[in-house]
Amino acid sequence: MDRIPILKVGDCLLVTIQVDMHDELAVRLQEDLTAQISKYASRGVLIDISSLEIVDSFIGRMLANIAAMSRVLDAQTVLTGMQPAVAITLVELGMSLPGIKTALNVERGMELLREVMREDPAEADDDDAEE
Amino acid sequence: MDRIPILKVGDCLLVTIQVDMHDELAVRLQEDLTAQISKYASRGVLIDISSLEIVDSFIGRMLANIAAMSRVLDAQTVLTGMQPAVAITLVELGMSLPGIKTALNVERGMELLREVMREDPAEADDDDAEE
Repeated sequence: MDRIPILKVGDCLLVTIQVDMHDELAVRLQEDLTAQISKYASRGVLIDISSLEIVDSFIGRMLANIAAMSRVLDAQTVLTGMQPAVAITLVELGMSLPGIKTALNVERGMELLREVMREDPAEADDDDAEE
Repeated sequence: MDRIPILKVGDCLLVTIQVDMHDELAVRLQEDLTAQISKYASRGVLIDISSLEIVDSFIGRMLANIAAMSRVLDAQTVLTGMQPAVAITLVELGMSLPGIKTALNVERGMELLREVMREDPAEADDDDAEE
């Protein structure tokens, strides 16, 4: 597999990370994701990491970068499905992911995104309004 | 990675297949998926294969099996994101996936599932009615 698929679900983009990330794959994901945010004028990005059992500083940095890139493109990032061991590792690595909102699962993540979008004083105040 | 994550999105379950499937992973996906259909009383399963560039008869059979299992649990299966080359290979392998509905992408797949659920004379006739 040479790229991670990005699925458009309503007004959000959904990414599930299932494979071990390496440099090239991470760069490609960032490129694809920013391109799709721009293309679809998406206001939210959901990243599901429920199948990741180990997270290292590389992945932590990548997630932080994706969130920062999304933010400057006016999209919110929510990280979902983090396993307890991953939370422990991230904090022990000194990465508490300050700019990223998290949710237990994709459903709650979508609710959170909708809330955030509603609060945000932009043109899209409903989840399907722009389509 | 030892299992493929299954995401609950509204009334549907969403599976994105990104990694090369092998026996054990396929069996585990079938077990997990049937368990979740049963647990959440899901009426629809979306399987996204947009990152698969090659499909062999093993994956074709697995997809057909998943659709058949879902059907007997009263859930519809829609396959999304098939690449043109995969369509050619599947038909050349003699697998035209007769029991499986397909859609170009996840958004259209969700619309299709909603239509199918609405036509289906069961208790859930709206996408969020059961929640």
